[in-house]
Amino acid sequence: MLKRIAIITGSKSDMPIVNKAQEVLNKFNIDYETHIISAHRTPDKAHEFAVNAVKNNFGVIIAVAGKAAHLAGVLAAYTHIPVIGVPVKSDDLGGLDALLSTVQMPSGVPVATVAINGGANAAWLALRILAVENSDLAAKIDDAMKNMTNEIYEQDRALNS
Amino acid sequence: MLKRIAIITGSKSDMPIVNKAQEVLNKFNIDYETHIISAHRTPDKAHEFAVNAVKNNFGVIIAVAGKAAHLAGVLAAYTHIPVIGVPVKSDDLGGLDALLSTVQMPSGVPVATVAINGGANAAWLALRILAVENSDLAAKIDDAMKNMTNEIYEQDRALNS
Amino acid sequence: MLKRIAIITGSKSDMPIVNKAQEVLNKFNIDYETHIISAHRTPDKAHEFAVNAVKNNFGVIIAVAGKAAHLAGVLAAYTHIPVIGVPVKSDDLGGLDALLSTVQMPSGVPVATVAINGGANAAWLALRILAVENSDLAAKIDDAMKNMTNEIYEQDRALNS
Amino acid sequence: MLKRIAIITGSKSDMPIVNKAQEVLNKFNIDYETHIISAHRTPDKAHEFAVNAVKNNFGVIIAVAGKAAHLAGVLAAYTHIPVIGVPVKSDDLGGLDALLSTVQMPSGVPVATVAINGGANAAWLALRILAVENSDLAAKIDDAMKNMTNEIYEQDRALNS
Amino acid sequence: MLKRIAIITGSKSDMPIVNKAQEVLNKFNIDYETHIISAHRTPDKAHEFAVNAVKNNFGVIIAVAGKAAHLAGVLAAYTHIPVIGVPVKSDDLGGLDALLSTVQMPSGVPVATVAINGGANAAWLALRILAVENSDLAAKIDDAMKNMTNEIYEQDRALNS
Amino acid sequence: MLKRIAIITGSKSDMPIVNKAQEVLNKFNIDYETHIISAHRTPDKAHEFAVNAVKNNFGVIIAVAGKAAHLAGVLAAYTHIPVIGVPVKSDDLGGLDALLSTVQMPSGVPVATVAINGGANAAWLALRILAVENSDLAAKIDDAMKNMTNEIYEQDRALNS
Amino acid sequence: MLKRIAIITGSKSDMPIVNKAQEVLNKFNIDYETHIISAHRTPDKAHEFAVNAVKNNFGVIIAVAGKAAHLAGVLAAYTHIPVIGVPVKSDDLGGLDALLSTVQMPSGVPVATVAINGGANAAWLALRILAVENSDLAAKIDDAMKNMTNEIYEQDRALNS
Amino acid sequence: MLKRIAIITGSKSDMPIVNKAQEVLNKFNIDYETHIISAHRTPDKAHEFAVNAVKNNFGVIIAVAGKAAHLAGVLAAYTHIPVIGVPVKSDDLGGLDALLSTVQMPSGVPVATVAINGGANAAWLALRILAVENSDLAAKIDDAMKNMTNEIYEQDRALNS
Repeated sequence: MLKRIAIITGSKSDMPIVNKAQEVLNKFNIDYETHIISAHRTPDKAHEFAVNAVKNNFGVIIAVAGKAAHLAGVLAAYTHIPVIGVPVKSDDLGGLDALLSTVQMPSGVPVATVAINGGANAAWLALRILAVENSDLAAKIDDAMKNMTNEIYEQDRALNS
Repeated sequence: MLKRIAIITGSKSDMPIVNKAQEVLNKFNIDYETHIISAHRTPDKAHEFAVNAVKNNFGVIIAVAGKAAHLAGVLAAYTHIPVIGVPVKSDDLGGLDALLSTVQMPSGVPVATVAINGGANAAWLALRILAVENSDLAAKIDDAMKNMTNEIYEQDRALNS
Repeated sequence: MLKRIAIITGSKSDMPIVNKAQEVLNKFNIDYETHIISAHRTPDKAHEFAVNAVKNNFGVIIAVAGKAAHLAGVLAAYTHIPVIGVPVKSDDLGGLDALLSTVQMPSGVPVATVAINGGANAAWLALRILAVENSDLAAKIDDAMKNMTNEIYEQDRALNS
Repeated sequence: MLKRIAIITGSKSDMPIVNKAQEVLNKFNIDYETHIISAHRTPDKAHEFAVNAVKNNFGVIIAVAGKAAHLAGVLAAYTHIPVIGVPVKSDDLGGLDALLSTVQMPSGVPVATVAINGGANAAWLALRILAVENSDLAAKIDDAMKNMTNEIYEQDRALNS
Repeated sequence: MLKRIAIITGSKSDMPIVNKAQEVLNKFNIDYETHIISAHRTPDKAHEFAVNAVKNNFGVIIAVAGKAAHLAGVLAAYTHIPVIGVPVKSDDLGGLDALLSTVQMPSGVPVATVAINGGANAAWLALRILAVENSDLAAKIDDAMKNMTNEIYEQDRALNS
Repeated sequence: MLKRIAIITGSKSDMPIVNKAQEVLNKFNIDYETHIISAHRTPDKAHEFAVNAVKNNFGVIIAVAGKAAHLAGVLAAYTHIPVIGVPVKSDDLGGLDALLSTVQMPSGVPVATVAINGGANAAWLALRILAVENSDLAAKIDDAMKNMTNEIYEQDRALNS
Repeated sequence: MLKRIAIITGSKSDMPIVNKAQEVLNKFNIDYETHIISAHRTPDKAHEFAVNAVKNNFGVIIAVAGKAAHLAGVLAAYTHIPVIGVPVKSDDLGGLDALLSTVQMPSGVPVATVAINGGANAAWLALRILAVENSDLAAKIDDAMKNMTNEIYEQDRALNS
Repeated sequence: MLKRIAIITGSKSDMPIVNKAQEVLNKFNIDYETHIISAHRTPDKAHEFAVNAVKNNFGVIIAVAGKAAHLAGVLAAYTHIPVIGVPVKSDDLGGLDALLSTVQMPSGVPVATVAINGGANAAWLALRILAVENSDLAAKIDDAMKNMTNEIYEQDRALNS
């Protein structure tokens, strides 16, 4: 049976990015939980969540955060579960701050960083990780990738007909 | 049994970053293969490698590339296996080009990006991914993280004694 | 007879930039084809298109893509035809990501990069390339440049009258 | 009696920046402690240190860290003591990553950020903070500022004599 | 008795950022004064204000400025009182200019820089500074931090109920 | 018969980048001329060169320049011949200035921009342009690309033997 | 008698920035002329204008341009008259491109660069330059600066009454 | 008789950039004075210098400063004399910080900014400003520009002979 995915965001205002991840996981009927946990306002909760993540049967953690964006790194410090970081765009620096805060982690505590506002891709990456040892899920991803391919083919045909 | 890890680099000049990944994997006695495959000079080989990666029992692909750094994305387009991208620092823009080329992937084709020149962290992330369904490896990562912790403790004691 | 121009974009959302190229080519009655081909979602199609571009009588390929923007580089890897890359502005980093991904290509596989959102200039550059061996087209470009000159002169006169 | 200053760094390699802070504090005979505590490798120690900082009579915490640079923010999450963040220059992005990671903190959990590699200024800022309620220290800072002024005056005289 | 806080801004257009600081201070019933003083249009006033700030019983100065943003540095040059700099976002460079102008101060004249548009955090940092020698205020900050924590807990419960 | 290639640089100090272009052209026995012409110090010469470039049988112009890097744009304003711009790295901003100055051209006056310090790729792009109507040269480029491919294959074999 | 000021812009779309310069000059009753001259679309006109600027009694040239923004540099190459460059903000890179293109000029051909979209400051700088040998104008600038000072004083009084 | 030029630098470490300005002025036998005055360490001296600059017969002020680089702006606030700012490259951000701090001045208090480390061009700009009302100096600048032109011509001839 597949492990579960956790989606953590540091702020209610980042829920639109969280939703993009949820939509992908919903299509795959993957079991996930979403939590609002702030690295800076609820550090104890972040600690507790990460420490218990294995016991709670999570296989991947997705962390969505903007600006200083320490959330993914803080979670990764407390668990060996792969943590995927989604840097959120802000009004001022366009998300460059969150991107660098998320990706430039020190050796031994990696964060798998995806694109700015890349909630959907965080989910796709989580699926790929769970599929490493699950050929059914792998086959479903292959199908979905073929669908994406066909969608583009269809768009091209529509454009040229 | 654990799946294997592939380390792909687009250029011989990036081998020092590759070596940082290899050192980590060697410590864990993980089976890996290293290849020089260029997204732009050997695109057919990149295609062939990615398409056959599942069959060849790879569980994670690490792609090391600088400047335009399309390697990770090109590999991810051909397989559902998680691809970890390591942006390599260049002399001019300090690796910002490779970082953005690697991380800003479109929805559905994610690349798990780590820090600029983060060869070691790419290996650590690959280990975390393989450990999702392997509690022995997970325990070894936990031990290694404890060792890192102790090393810092030791440094702090040395500083204050 | 002039070779044809291909305009490839990775995403339907980039069509406004594609249209700017088409408008320029339409004015010159140049034969062109437009396709939606994604480097990451339809990599096989990208491969096939580039490999057959000479046979299909294309003389220049314009590739329009945003964010990681691997499209131009991927096409250039499979053909000796000049590939012009148009980086597309995104909401977050203003197109800096696409610009660097497009322009920082490794030696031997160049992409002729134009300005962010520079669909029109991609067409102008394609025309200049086709005009290298076609003095009729060259004369038409000269005329168009003179018209641009006169338009500015006219604007200056209007301002000062 | 003045409270003490803590200087925390996440990595032994940042000691040259730490030393710049120590030199300033030494000149003022301020009581300080230096520790190597990593936000990611020894998160429990970071937590413990911050939680006990008031009890241990610290009045200001200086946190020195590079790259993702979460240290200052992590400490600030666990205490109301002012935390001064010193972003450390790295080889690739020149410290822009550490600067943004340190300064772009969410509302309610501020980090007082000084210049990249600004170890000395972190100490000067800590002194200013302690001097808010200590007019002796304030007078010493005034004297030191006058000395800096005179030093520049002297340099100008030397140049023009 | 607590010292007062000064909030200085260089331009009426930055008042929304000033207001974010005022709202925080109002909640804590802290005595503050707000002034419009421009480093470049009223340099004498800036000088006069800073030189008399101790006498006027100010304990912290918050300086809010955009673009070249010299205000915080200019004030810090004339007083030993801690100066907190708030870089203001502009339309063109998103506040990167103001951030660098504010934070990259030379040794001996530090500015405690907070996030771009971080008016609220400037107030929070000022409170932390005043609380160094005031345990009542410290207790109030602790309470406020607990409230922030509970607010996030509440949001998480609402999301998962 | 093939048209000639002009390599123009604004400064003797950029000759190492020019040499990288020359080496590529030498391998293909392409006829080229190299000139030192500064957009700012010899603007009349730049004008004269561009205006006469068609008459002098040039098919492509390569312009190598750093910092403000107006050379390519100034040449492109005076001729319909394709102009390839090579931004040169400087000590301060790593060539970002020259890249933006070269690539962000207004509509109607395109510059085909290659990578920072990409002298070699400028030559490769010039070859591709001349090959549009010359199948012999196209075949030679195909061969060279195959050689590049084989070189990488060889490196990979050496690594794994 | 004062020399005249020329305001040159490369594009009608930059007229709002030009207007900001005109408004300042109008207040001082300075004689100026405005022209639309493009460095790339009307290079001959740019050349002609600059070469004749002394004869036409211009004392300062203000050049307003965005993106590649070669206008100021091209004019400065043809005359010894001080050229003030105003980089114009664009949608994508916020004017960083125009700023770097304008300011990073080679030795011997300086451009006096003002802030992004700084049309007003270009006029203020032109006035300062003309005032070097005109004490009447200098006195008027002093008065205007005093008015700016008083305006801020007034705003501060209004805020605190 | 020509007015004098002041060269002000905030730090002895910037003297190499100052020297580049001096070398240019020496060639023109222009009367200048050099001072070390720090906006932050000797603000009173900066104030005094600027206020008395007219009386002391200065016609142009060159301000050389790195990092936060408030010097030019601070001087410009106290005088109507044109102030030329030279941003100095630093190790971390390559001078981008000093460039933005220098150039992004508010309306009414302009700084004529030249290239990063552009000490020579600051002198060239100062000469152009003094030449507005001095045709002898203008003629000397014209001669020097012709010499620069000839030097490039000579280099081109040497390259092609």
